[in-house]
Amino acid sequence: MPSVRVGVIGVTGGVGRTLVKQLQAQAPWLASRGVNFEISSVANSKKMAFQVPSTDRLDWSSLLQQGEPLDTQSFLDSMKPRDSDQHCLVFDCSASEAVAQLYLGALHSGIHVITPNKRLTSAPLEYCKAVQQAQWHCPNGSPRPHGQAKRVLYEAAVGAGLPIITTLQDLLSSGDEVQSIQGILSGTLSHLFNSYGPGQSFARLVQDARAQGYTEPDPRDDLCGMDVARKVLTLARECGVAMELGDVQVESLIPADMPAEMSSEEFLTSFSQYDSVMQHRLEQAAAANRVLRYVGCVDIPNRTCSVALQEFPQDHPFAQLSGTDNIVSFHTRRYSPQPLTIRGPGAGLEVTAAGVFGDFLRLLRSLGYAV
Amino acid sequence: MPSVRVGVIGVTGGVGRTLVKQLQAQAPWLASRGVNFEISSVANSKKMAFQVPSTDRLDWSSLLQQGEPLDTQSFLDSMKPRDSDQHCLVFDCSASEAVAQLYLGALHSGIHVITPNKRLTSAPLEYCKAVQQAQWHCPNGSPRPHGQAKRVLYEAAVGAGLPIITTLQDLLSSGDEVQSIQGILSGTLSHLFNSYGPGQSFARLVQDARAQGYTEPDPRDDLCGMDVARKVLTLARECGVAMELGDVQVESLIPADMPAEMSSEEFLTSFSQYDSVMQHRLEQAAAANRVLRYVGCVDIPNRTCSVALQEFPQDHPFAQLSGTDNIVSFHTRRYSPQPLTIRGPGAGLEVTAAGVFGDFLRLLRSLGYAV
Repeated sequence: MPSVRVGVIGVTGGVGRTLVKQLQAQAPWLASRGVNFEISSVANSKKMAFQVPSTDRLDWSSLLQQGEPLDTQSFLDSMKPRDSDQHCLVFDCSASEAVAQLYLGALHSGIHVITPNKRLTSAPLEYCKAVQQAQWHCPNGSPRPHGQAKRVLYEAAVGAGLPIITTLQDLLSSGDEVQSIQGILSGTLSHLFNSYGPGQSFARLVQDARAQGYTEPDPRDDLCGMDVARKVLTLARECGVAMELGDVQVESLIPADMPAEMSSEEFLTSFSQYDSVMQHRLEQAAAANRVLRYVGCVDIPNRTCSVALQEFPQDHPFAQLSGTDNIVSFHTRRYSPQPLTIRGPGAGLEVTAAGVFGDFLRLLRSLGYAV
Repeated sequence: MPSVRVGVIGVTGGVGRTLVKQLQAQAPWLASRGVNFEISSVANSKKMAFQVPSTDRLDWSSLLQQGEPLDTQSFLDSMKPRDSDQHCLVFDCSASEAVAQLYLGALHSGIHVITPNKRLTSAPLEYCKAVQQAQWHCPNGSPRPHGQAKRVLYEAAVGAGLPIITTLQDLLSSGDEVQSIQGILSGTLSHLFNSYGPGQSFARLVQDARAQGYTEPDPRDDLCGMDVARKVLTLARECGVAMELGDVQVESLIPADMPAEMSSEEFLTSFSQYDSVMQHRLEQAAAANRVLRYVGCVDIPNRTCSVALQEFPQDHPFAQLSGTDNIVSFHTRRYSPQPLTIRGPGAGLEVTAAGVFGDFLRLLRSLGYAV
């Protein structure tokens, strides 16, 4: 079998770098199963390189400093298979909307795409559907020949390495009917509310989390709820709910009267003025022996999605998370009254890269490899 | 593409019957993805039939009453592919050791096997390894050509429809290192200890569970712990631990001095004499604010497996199950200190058949189908 040609976008970022390390570490095992791969193109947000030396200990940053300025279309062109026997795939480890816009062209060019990037599954529905369709259909609309599907896989877009999307897809494909999905889907917000207690300053907690690298550089990107909304939308669309990102009802944790043009430092300073508001909600919950959790919900019968701060009793599974744990519960016709629940760290470089690696294995299996 | 030929062993049992219903219900969706299948051979523990009319509402029992006496070797012979383009698979929905002994021959004959039967993965190690190898190797030891693997899949052997084995396999294949696996792996024993409280008769609880169909006809088949031991062994072997069933340390819940030759009725009557023993353990646990759970463990560094009644604090995830919930926690290098945990009903016809169906989807994907 010819080598599988691999391109990596975002190779100097944390997830991209970690993924490449995992691929290199598993290369001997993959080779023993008949899988040989070569990393033939790499890119970060500024540069790209097509001549990648095949050595284990490559400094991607130095390599890219000598590369060409990034042109994502040229990057994808470099990854086009030369014939129908050659398997080419791009790992998009960026979080870029512009890159996600290129997936359709990639599939049409015969390139598989694997990504933890949420910008595909939360893109406008029409584009998202077109990409899904392009897996099984040629650009002219005719079905691809047997064994010639071009896949886009995105397990790590929700829950990092946790098997959330594949589990949901298998439930649906086997004929189960999902009634609702509930989840704590942000590692950052899980950490914040798992730690938040009576008498604490919520703003201070956010500051500390940022200092420890648990939040985005601007914590408002976590607090606004849109990251969770994108994940909830991803799950809803898997269930066939035709909805746009704007249709998700989102309770932002950023006070509505705080000016958007503040710097993140100004925001963090001013945010402490609202500590009493959050503390009041915590006390209300505690008075009922409950805790606060920031939860995403998909309600299938009502075709609604929401993201909101909710109260849960102490003995609820959502009340007992630690660290950056994510948790997702699927309530279905078969999983009733007890749901199917998956829980564990849902953020972090190693587990996110491992989720991407899992998709690589699934792709290889679909190509007939013995992995 | 030619039809996928399907044989079903155990078709008049609960899981077999439910699986066939799920397959028939999903047939239109599968056809829309290019998958057409025909059920060409069926069997139960006594009879087999090779002429299966293609109608949705078939009474398998009547069909089999007119069938031939079961000869499993002839059954498998009937399923042999006629050329390398034809895909044939047998669903073994029995719990038969004799049928599991035929898997090696089935794979060598080019037949895929999908099963919830624990008798494969808890068979003597040498046989189990030979079957695993036969997926990727021809009988003469040479690797099967690319795309010609013959698979044996058994996700539903542990946790029914919960994604336990595929998750574990993906963790390992992506290079994670499992340190330990802990789980409540028996729906029956989960139900019993989720319900058992102070002042209750444990024997009475077992009697009630049996009357409600939650236990095996002879509840000692649950209480002896061997069902859990088989599942623990299955997980340990996935992690590369070379161990036999007899090496699993099992704490049986059947008092050692009860004569094995009792009928199940006699057992249930006599078992109540031991209620105070179990109640004492419960009280000891309760005094430390703990509960009793029957737990299987795989300890990788020490290469040991155990099944035992253990105490857990009230806020431990194992303490908060309901109904027949199973739960499995994977502690790994990447999932540390917080494990990856999967929880949900781990017994029942619909979820077990759905677990088997999930393997069918994975097999179809590996054959290039667009599912």
